[in-house]
Amino acid sequence: MKQRQDLNWTVGWSDDIDAQPAEMVAAVVPGAVQLDWARAHGWPDYTYADNWREYRWMEDVYWTYRTKLAILEAGKDEQICLVCGGVDYKFLVRINDRVVHRQEGMFTPSELDLTRVSSGDILEIVIYPAPKSQLEHDDRSQANQSCKPAASYGWDWHPRLIPLGIWEDTYIEVRSRHRLRHAETFYDLSDDFLTANLRVNTHFGDDFSGRLQWTVTDDAGDIQLSASTEITSAVEKLNGTIDAPRLWWPNGEGEAVLYTSRLELFGDDGRLLDTRTQRIGFRRVRLIEHPGTWGEPSEFPKSRSNPPITLEINGRPIFGKGSNWVNEGIFPGVMNAESYRRLLERAHQANFNLLRIWGGGPANKESFFDICDEMGLLVWQEFPLACNNYLGTPEYLKVLDQESRSIILRLRQHPSLAIWCGGNELFNAWSRMTDQSPALRLLAANCYNMDPKTPFLMTSPVEGMGHGNYVFRDSAGKEVFQMFRNASCTAYTEFGCPGPSPVDYLKTFIPEEDLFPPRPGTAWETHHAFNAWVGPTWLELPTIEAYFGPSPNLETLVERGTWLQVEGYKCLFEEARRQKPRCSMALNWCFNEPWPTAANNSLISWPCEPKPAYHAVASACRVSLASARVSKFSWREGDVFSPELWILHDDPNPLASGRLVASIEFGGSETVLLNWDFPEIAPSVNLPGPILRFMLPHAGADRISLILRVEGRPDLDSRYDLLYTPSHSAVEPTAHAPTMNI
Amino acid sequence: MKQRQDLNWTVGWSDDIDAQPAEMVAAVVPGAVQLDWARAHGWPDYTYADNWREYRWMEDVYWTYRTKLAILEAGKDEQICLVCGGVDYKFLVRINDRVVHRQEGMFTPSELDLTRVSSGDILEIVIYPAPKSQLEHDDRSQANQSCKPAASYGWDWHPRLIPLGIWEDTYIEVRSRHRLRHAETFYDLSDDFLTANLRVNTHFGDDFSGRLQWTVTDDAGDIQLSASTEITSAVEKLNGTIDAPRLWWPNGEGEAVLYTSRLELFGDDGRLLDTRTQRIGFRRVRLIEHPGTWGEPSEFPKSRSNPPITLEINGRPIFGKGSNWVNEGIFPGVMNAESYRRLLERAHQANFNLLRIWGGGPANKESFFDICDEMGLLVWQEFPLACNNYLGTPEYLKVLDQESRSIILRLRQHPSLAIWCGGNELFNAWSRMTDQSPALRLLAANCYNMDPKTPFLMTSPVEGMGHGNYVFRDSAGKEVFQMFRNASCTAYTEFGCPGPSPVDYLKTFIPEEDLFPPRPGTAWETHHAFNAWVGPTWLELPTIEAYFGPSPNLETLVERGTWLQVEGYKCLFEEARRQKPRCSMALNWCFNEPWPTAANNSLISWPCEPKPAYHAVASACRVSLASARVSKFSWREGDVFSPELWILHDDPNPLASGRLVASIEFGGSETVLLNWDFPEIAPSVNLPGPILRFMLPHAGADRISLILRVEGRPDLDSRYDLLYTPSHSAVEPTAHAPTMNI
Repeated sequence: MKQRQDLNWTVGWSDDIDAQPAEMVAAVVPGAVQLDWARAHGWPDYTYADNWREYRWMEDVYWTYRTKLAILEAGKDEQICLVCGGVDYKFLVRINDRVVHRQEGMFTPSELDLTRVSSGDILEIVIYPAPKSQLEHDDRSQANQSCKPAASYGWDWHPRLIPLGIWEDTYIEVRSRHRLRHAETFYDLSDDFLTANLRVNTHFGDDFSGRLQWTVTDDAGDIQLSASTEITSAVEKLNGTIDAPRLWWPNGEGEAVLYTSRLELFGDDGRLLDTRTQRIGFRRVRLIEHPGTWGEPSEFPKSRSNPPITLEINGRPIFGKGSNWVNEGIFPGVMNAESYRRLLERAHQANFNLLRIWGGGPANKESFFDICDEMGLLVWQEFPLACNNYLGTPEYLKVLDQESRSIILRLRQHPSLAIWCGGNELFNAWSRMTDQSPALRLLAANCYNMDPKTPFLMTSPVEGMGHGNYVFRDSAGKEVFQMFRNASCTAYTEFGCPGPSPVDYLKTFIPEEDLFPPRPGTAWETHHAFNAWVGPTWLELPTIEAYFGPSPNLETLVERGTWLQVEGYKCLFEEARRQKPRCSMALNWCFNEPWPTAANNSLISWPCEPKPAYHAVASACRVSLASARVSKFSWREGDVFSPELWILHDDPNPLASGRLVASIEFGGSETVLLNWDFPEIAPSVNLPGPILRFMLPHAGADRISLILRVEGRPDLDSRYDLLYTPSHSAVEPTAHAPTMNI
Repeated sequence: MKQRQDLNWTVGWSDDIDAQPAEMVAAVVPGAVQLDWARAHGWPDYTYADNWREYRWMEDVYWTYRTKLAILEAGKDEQICLVCGGVDYKFLVRINDRVVHRQEGMFTPSELDLTRVSSGDILEIVIYPAPKSQLEHDDRSQANQSCKPAASYGWDWHPRLIPLGIWEDTYIEVRSRHRLRHAETFYDLSDDFLTANLRVNTHFGDDFSGRLQWTVTDDAGDIQLSASTEITSAVEKLNGTIDAPRLWWPNGEGEAVLYTSRLELFGDDGRLLDTRTQRIGFRRVRLIEHPGTWGEPSEFPKSRSNPPITLEINGRPIFGKGSNWVNEGIFPGVMNAESYRRLLERAHQANFNLLRIWGGGPANKESFFDICDEMGLLVWQEFPLACNNYLGTPEYLKVLDQESRSIILRLRQHPSLAIWCGGNELFNAWSRMTDQSPALRLLAANCYNMDPKTPFLMTSPVEGMGHGNYVFRDSAGKEVFQMFRNASCTAYTEFGCPGPSPVDYLKTFIPEEDLFPPRPGTAWETHHAFNAWVGPTWLELPTIEAYFGPSPNLETLVERGTWLQVEGYKCLFEEARRQKPRCSMALNWCFNEPWPTAANNSLISWPCEPKPAYHAVASACRVSLASARVSKFSWREGDVFSPELWILHDDPNPLASGRLVASIEFGGSETVLLNWDFPEIAPSVNLPGPILRFMLPHAGADRISLILRVEGRPDLDSRYDLLYTPSHSAVEPTAHAPTMNI
């Protein structure tokens, strides 16, 4: 039916688009020219120390992929085609020096008819230097007139290393001329979710007669719908109904049920010419207002009420728990189903139901969404705009129009795809775009025209939502405990708490002589421990020393920094959840990272090594848990320790009544402070409990731990580890720790 | 070339769409069925007392317009066409009982080929009952599933009277088959405004050869551009350039220069077949941020900066001064260039540069925009959505799509058209639409796709902007003086201060026996003096009595209410202007009214009788003026009277230095309080001046007047009349006036 031929590619560079590369090396497709070149020349790992600097020149030259076409025989009614999933970024295609295709934009696939090409002909894909709108500022602003993801121009967790190359599957296909040029299954769910009306739109070539067969099977493989038609025009539509469809639910809310729509195209002779399958998850997604929205504003002159940000799936409001996904690696060409799955399994295990695919990175490959569909992970997908003012020049708008249409067309049928978003932080001082920016008006129009049922946001944050902060303690001494207690956002779509990477991991990319003490000017800095963002990010040495004093060795330093990250993230996620239903989303910055960082807000070290904070966040995102609102991190003898007790409960089922036992552990002993007999809790509602009050006695300890246990339900138990200082203490290591006065 | 034949219409009603009306009466087209029926039956004026109630049944029946077609001869290559500008609201067209057209929506014109129709044939336009989404609530919410303007379903200044009928020009046209089916001139201005690149897109029928001639003339009639082409395809484009075009400026900023683009279509025989003219005003309009936008928000978690609302014309920020325009009358069919011009001249004379065409009324006819183009009045045009939740059913979206496209296509080339807006107050509690509402996403997409250079707002207000309040003093006793001093909106796009209509005017529609004292349950109430909106609107008797005590007669009452409206509006406009540049717009509610009101926020009584408040607003909107920030309305002996002096200056030219003399007049004598020698003032910048401090002495007076005179510039002088009460006074009429303690 279809026959695929992979190609053997070589790649080389030149300073001029018409010059022959002086040297060609073997290329892996999909991949990146940088990886090919480094592999061929035996370069050391780009992730180690400052090796990445060696790659800098590669962004400014022309790269030519070359392959010699082998003998291909096209039968009658057959076509030989180059199927190119995507080239990063601007390129042309030549056959024997004749230009046959030009394109700017990595997200738009292309196809080239090679039927008349001869065996032995040379096919070349020539890639232009990385796009730069200007040369004065060597940073992300160079990406502000292209659809090239901006992170690779350098970010506070990403080295300056701009990938180029054939990044999506690219091959020769021999296929029937009579095929499904486009085939897509749509559905409408009735308001009571009891009926799904499906329709399939197909497009063939002209002058073809044959038969189209359509079946939809459920997850057990049973046929739920079947229809067929004789083909009488170039466009055929089929309709069908499924009663009482099993709905697709996000993680923690139910099963992510997937059906399969299968189309088969038969010729007049009964021969199967083409097939297409598409998975369907029946669900309705909306953004709705939080309770109380319409009571605001209350005074004249009245402005508007906040925009809605609560995800409603199948009529049920969902608290969005998850994280910001950045590019999985520096080179998108090597991302694949396996690497996606490894990370997505971690997201699923962390009880996440929502990932924000941040606009500074690329839209992921198809397999990413397939896995999210399976795992019930909702996706907030941004277009490739981030922290820049993307001016609406005609040239830019043309590429953005093309690229956004390609992305929408590719992803709109995935049940996981829950929100389209113009890009990251575009309405803030560092970007200065507005609701009137042509680029965002274009994206709004394309999303509505092509996918009207999926919510669209121009950017994040919009009014009511919040981004930041990204530190455990800000420059004014305010900790996450106070900062978020006093915030009242409708969604926290970015917030972070940095932590160092584990010691063994640090040793893999920081030369031994630089390991301790960490210093600027070493691999610590290029791996983002120093001078990455504002203040002493991301290692935050002054904060660590403010609590603990100087660290005697790397292990202690990492342990202390990790402690802050762990407790900070617990506080952040649980506080956001306590603010439900006004707040309906908690997405930390960030989930993963594209290369090894020495310190970062990430939960998972590259490529997929969970940090202790990952487990803390997974715990804080349990569907239900015992939780405490703690007012600060550092405590001393004589302080009245007064955490508020809560049961956080996102489960769509009620939680049985029970007993929560709160105890404090320090100096090696545990004291029960309170038993709280809580009643049955209604579905998806949090229950505030009593406030403990306990004067901290003297103890020879450097920490206190609040332990919450729910009798018979150890899965709900929680623990908070806080700093403790006895009066007149000489206990190490807190001797030099100033007590926070907040 | 073209030959027009007007038709003689009759109209009658029936309960059933297929039933013949029992009685046909003469109809005026364009017009309204209500007016025809009332005229034929000698009904008294609908504006008098409660006469409007008699019209209620008319909204629920079918109305049939009928005409007998006369002999029409179509030559070879000619076509006979029914050209119908618009029918309000849902209708069908029948010829001899055969339905030839069906339509919902008043803003979409239609054309019917009548070439094959015989003389004597009967043409009927049958109008359906007024659309109602439900019958339980007899109010504006009935309009929430249609594009019928909502005001006529009853508003706080509009009786329940829903117009129906042929409301736009409708006639028979004999014309060449070879004609300009569509012809539109577009332009791009260079960033330095020194070059205008024009292009004209035309569309003909197929199989036509001939010549297209294009000229663009300036306002002196001189040809600035000329081009022609032989027609070789159904679509022809022409391009041209005008160097150093004279720009179009809004009122107060420069001249509203108009060019004329003229297209002529010639046949092969040289015969002129069709022409089209379009006026062009070269200007660039944008919404930009106010200074300081990017400094907000300043704290984590950070939300977005406010959306831009400052109008920038040709690179110059403009303070938008103007008003909200409501439907000019109850029956849009009788609006015409003359009635528009009468009101628009008043807007122009009031120094307005911006009118918000409120979404509760209809989009005006073409002539309205022609006059705005000429007068330099910017138009903020809303689609017909107001104060409802317009749910995105497929049926509604289909009509909205059609109607919005028609409106955009008709108006997009008018230089006056400055802002598209989805509708009124849609993001507030009483509407409950959001950024995710399909109707607004559709309008955003259509505006971007069809008119990307014109700013689009989903609604008013959005964040930063404010609507309200609409009273001189709110229920908590706060006056406009305090309310707006403490507000900091980026734009005040609705605010009002009610006042009674003049005595002579009241006598024209309130029966004499009801004139005094005003009471609910009389024509005062149906003409909106009582129970119109929240509180004792719009006469606001308790407020008048709180300041002045009971009024002995109608004249005194009207004088007092008018005083409050006059001083309230002065304060409101001037305070908004003082808040420039953070604030960049002041549009009061409302400019006009559709029928006589007994009391209203309007500046002009129906049809075009300026109230004293109109003149106060005109004065407050002078390009430059001396102004005072006064803290309250009611003063007493011993108070320290301490107005802040300002020069408000929107002129794009500097204001020469000068001397402002501030004096106070009361008890018949005037005392100079201060001479302020102010320096030259830069273009478009306000200048704050000194704060007066003057202890009010005893006087036998009931008012104090602050008089500001600028030596040699009487056009800048201002005056504020405030209430005064001597201690232990027995002076009438303030004996019972409680002094405001604020």
